[in-house]
Amino acid sequence: MSTSSLDAIFNPRSVAVAGVSTRGDYRQLGGNSYLHAIINGGFKGKLYPVNPKGGEVQGLTVYPSVRDIPGDVDFVISAIPASGALQLIKDCAAKGVKAIHFFTSGFSELGKPEGIELERQVLAVAREHGIRVVGPNCMGVYCPASGLSFLADMSTEAGKTGMICQSGGNAMYVAREAARRGVRFSKVVSYGNASDVNESDLMEYMADDPDTELIMAYIEGVKDGERFKKALQHAATRKPVLVLKVGVTESGARAAASHTGSLAGVDKVWDGLLSQVNAVRVDTLEEWIDMAVTFTFFPEPPGRNVALLGLGGGATVLAGDEATKEGLVIPGLPDELRESTAGLLGSEAGTIIDNPMDLSAEAWTVGYYPILKVFSEYEGIDLTIVHFSVGLIARPPELHREIWDKLIDDVTRAHSDFGKPVVVVIQMMTLPVHYDWMVEAREKCYRSGIAVYNSIRHAARSGNRLLRYQAKKRERAGG
Amino acid sequence: MSTSSLDAIFNPRSVAVAGVSTRGDYRQLGGNSYLHAIINGGFKGKLYPVNPKGGEVQGLTVYPSVRDIPGDVDFVISAIPASGALQLIKDCAAKGVKAIHFFTSGFSELGKPEGIELERQVLAVAREHGIRVVGPNCMGVYCPASGLSFLADMSTEAGKTGMICQSGGNAMYVAREAARRGVRFSKVVSYGNASDVNESDLMEYMADDPDTELIMAYIEGVKDGERFKKALQHAATRKPVLVLKVGVTESGARAAASHTGSLAGVDKVWDGLLSQVNAVRVDTLEEWIDMAVTFTFFPEPPGRNVALLGLGGGATVLAGDEATKEGLVIPGLPDELRESTAGLLGSEAGTIIDNPMDLSAEAWTVGYYPILKVFSEYEGIDLTIVHFSVGLIARPPELHREIWDKLIDDVTRAHSDFGKPVVVVIQMMTLPVHYDWMVEAREKCYRSGIAVYNSIRHAARSGNRLLRYQAKKRERAGG
Repeated sequence: MSTSSLDAIFNPRSVAVAGVSTRGDYRQLGGNSYLHAIINGGFKGKLYPVNPKGGEVQGLTVYPSVRDIPGDVDFVISAIPASGALQLIKDCAAKGVKAIHFFTSGFSELGKPEGIELERQVLAVAREHGIRVVGPNCMGVYCPASGLSFLADMSTEAGKTGMICQSGGNAMYVAREAARRGVRFSKVVSYGNASDVNESDLMEYMADDPDTELIMAYIEGVKDGERFKKALQHAATRKPVLVLKVGVTESGARAAASHTGSLAGVDKVWDGLLSQVNAVRVDTLEEWIDMAVTFTFFPEPPGRNVALLGLGGGATVLAGDEATKEGLVIPGLPDELRESTAGLLGSEAGTIIDNPMDLSAEAWTVGYYPILKVFSEYEGIDLTIVHFSVGLIARPPELHREIWDKLIDDVTRAHSDFGKPVVVVIQMMTLPVHYDWMVEAREKCYRSGIAVYNSIRHAARSGNRLLRYQAKKRERAGG
Repeated sequence: MSTSSLDAIFNPRSVAVAGVSTRGDYRQLGGNSYLHAIINGGFKGKLYPVNPKGGEVQGLTVYPSVRDIPGDVDFVISAIPASGALQLIKDCAAKGVKAIHFFTSGFSELGKPEGIELERQVLAVAREHGIRVVGPNCMGVYCPASGLSFLADMSTEAGKTGMICQSGGNAMYVAREAARRGVRFSKVVSYGNASDVNESDLMEYMADDPDTELIMAYIEGVKDGERFKKALQHAATRKPVLVLKVGVTESGARAAASHTGSLAGVDKVWDGLLSQVNAVRVDTLEEWIDMAVTFTFFPEPPGRNVALLGLGGGATVLAGDEATKEGLVIPGLPDELRESTAGLLGSEAGTIIDNPMDLSAEAWTVGYYPILKVFSEYEGIDLTIVHFSVGLIARPPELHREIWDKLIDDVTRAHSDFGKPVVVVIQMMTLPVHYDWMVEAREKCYRSGIAVYNSIRHAARSGNRLLRYQAKKRERAGG
C-alpha cells in the first residue's frame, strides 16, 4: 500500500476508541487513558468511545459498536482483549474505517500458534478492505499537531523530530525525557509487532514528511531488509537519521523475539549499513536523546576546539579527561588570556585559570558571563561546555540557590549576546531538591536554544558524533 | 616520618579549629562549618575554636591563638587565609601540635613563586617540629569512628572503606553518594597539594589499618613513583584497591597541575602498574562508587550466568544487550522453567517469559518473589539482576507507589530467604517524585545487604570487574 495511506493515522478527521469503560480509571493504561490523552492533546475532530454496554464517559456518548457510530470513522484505537479483535476489524471494514491501532496484545509476540493465527486473520480482513494496521501490542501514535496522543502528559507543542520506536515503553520514556531537554515531536509511532505498518513504511513516510526534519529510529528487527535499506538510504540523504538498533546480542535478540516477534539481524551488517548511508548510530536510550538534542540545538557546525568551564577542581580535571577521550580538543589558553581572566577574579586561590577552567571558591561570584565573553572573543575556541556539577555541593541548598540561578542566567545571556555556541552539562547532584532545580534549569536552557546534557562524557560524545556526521556529509556533497 | 605519625590525624585527643568567626555561618565552608561538622560527628575529645578576637561560638570559648589554648592540642584545622599560615604553623610548633590540616588554599597550586615559597616555608617549620601536614588546599579528614568530619551531613556510621582522594569536591560527592548506596567509611582523606602527607603515606596507612578492608584511591599525581608503587603493591596484596587515576589526557593533566600542582604521569604506565598488582581501575566517579558498592555487598563470588528480571519490553531487550556487552552470560531458560514461570502468571500477554524476563502488563501483580524463587532453584543461574526502570512509567505515581513498594519488598525478602545473590538496578525515571522513591528504595536494598546500581550497564560492568579481580586473585594464590 502507498505511504499516503498513513495520513489517516496521523491526521484522522474522526477517531473511535474501542474498549472504553464507564467505570474505568483514565490513569490506568487502556481505552480510557487513550480517550483522556486525545482530549488533552486538543484533538479537533470527532471522538467516539466504544463499549458494548453503551453509556457516557468523560462527557462523551459511548457507542455499543463501531458500526453504531453515526458519522464516518477514519481511525480506530483498540484497547479491547485479543479475543474480540477479529470481530472489531470486521466492524471496522463494514464501517469503512481507514486505519486501526491495536494497543491490544496477545498475538504473534506470544510465539504460539493461536496468537500467530489470530494476527494473520485480523490482517487478512484489514488488507481485504484497505485498512492500515498499527501494531498489535504497542502504544500507537503521538502527533501533537493533530492532537493525537498515547499519554495525557505528552507535550502539546509540535516540533520537527519524528520518532519510529517499536517499543512502547521506550517511546514513552524517550518522548518524555527528550521533551524535558527541549526536543519536540512531529510524529511518534510505537508499532509493536509490525503486522502491517512497519519500520520501512514509517521510514519512507518520515523521509518525505515536510514536518519532520530529524528522524529517530529504534529498531528491534526488520521485516524486509532490502526495502528498509532503501528507505533508510533515501531518508538519510534528506535528513539526519539517529538509529538505536537493539537485539544486537544473543540475549537481546532472544528478548526482542519474545517482545515483538522480531528477528534482530547481525550487528556487523547493521554497522556497515548505517555507516554507508551516514546514519548516526547510538548505543543507549540516553545517547539517542542526546543526539536529538544535539541536532535540534546546534544550528551551525562548531569546530573541535572546546573550552570547559565549571565549578570544582576535581570535576574540572575529570572534565578535561572525559572530553579529550571523546575526541574533542581542549587547547590550553595563551598567557595573555589567562592573565585577563585572572584580572576578572578577586582572588585566584582555589581556582584553575586555564582550559579546563574552574571557578571554585569565591571566584564564582564573578559569574560565567564575563568569562564567556572572553572566550567568545578568542578565535582559538569554537564552543564552550559549561558544567554544573559537584562544585556547589558543599553549601546547603538554601545558600546556593541564588548562585545557581545567577550562573544559569549568565549562560543563557551569554549564549544570546555572543556569537559562539554554548552547551550546558547539568550533572545530577546529591540531594532530591537538586532534581527539581535541574528540571527547571534544563528548561531555561533549552528555551534559550541551548543543548543540555547529563555529563561531560555525553556532551563531548554527542559533539564528536555531530562533527563526524557533518564532515562525512560535506565529503559526500563534494565527491 | 613513620606512618604511625598519621594516628594524630585520625584519632586526635583534642582538635583546634583556626579561622572560626563568632559571626560566621556554619553552613558556609570554612572554620565554622568544620566546627559544626565535628560537633555533629560526635567527637569525644576537646574542641577549641580559635580567632584573634576571642568570644564564643556554638557554645564553645574562642581562643585568640593556638598558644592560648589551656590543654594539649593534637590536631589543628586551619581555615584562615594563606597570609596567616606561617604564623599559625609557628604557633602550632610552640604548642607541641602533632598534625595540622590546611583547608586554606593559595599555595603552590597557584603555580606562582610566592605560593610555592610560602608552602615550602610552612613545611620547613612543620618538619623541624615533627608536625604532619594535610594539604594545603583540601577538605581534610572524615573519620566517623573518632567523630572527625569535614561536612555536617556525612554519615556518623563507621564502615570498612578507606578513601584517599586528592580532590575535596570529589571526596565530598563520592562520600555522600556512596553512603546513599550503603558504603560506610573507616577514613576519608582529601589531601590537596600533598605538601607532606601524600598518596604513598595514606596508601601505606590504609594497607595496614585494621579498620579498613577496602581502599578507594583517586589520584591526580604521585610525588614519588617508586614509593607509591611499593605501597600500592603492598596494599593490593592485603585488600582490594579501587583506583581512579585522573589527569590521563593532556588537558586533564593541565587541569591537575593547576588544581593540586600534580604531575599526572603516563596513562599506559598506570595501566600496566594497576594490572600488575591486581588493583581495580575505574574511569569515572560513578564506576568508582559502583565498585565500592560491589566489594561491600558481594560476599561470595557469583558465577557469570545471570538472569535479568524487570518491567518493560524494550527495557528488557536493552538489558539483555547491555549485560552481554559487558561480559556477562544471559542463558535462555529451559522449556520446563519457562512453563512453570508462565503458570505463575494469570496471562502471558505483554510479557517476556525467558531470560531476560519482562513482567509487564498485569503480570507484575505476581511480583518478583515467586519468580526469584524459581531462579534460586535453577542451577543454571548464579545471580539475578532485578531492574526497576521504564516499565512502570505509564501510570501516574499515585497509582504505582503500592506496586513499587511491593516489588522492592519482594526483592529484599527473596534476597534473605533464598541462597542466591540478587542485585538491583534502579534507573532514574522521569518525574521528580521518583527521585525520592529511588533514594528510599536504595536504602531499603542496602540495609538488606543488596548492591544497587543506576543502570544495567553499570551493574554488569561492576559484576564483570569483580569476577575478573577474583579470578586473578585465585590464579595468583594458586601460582
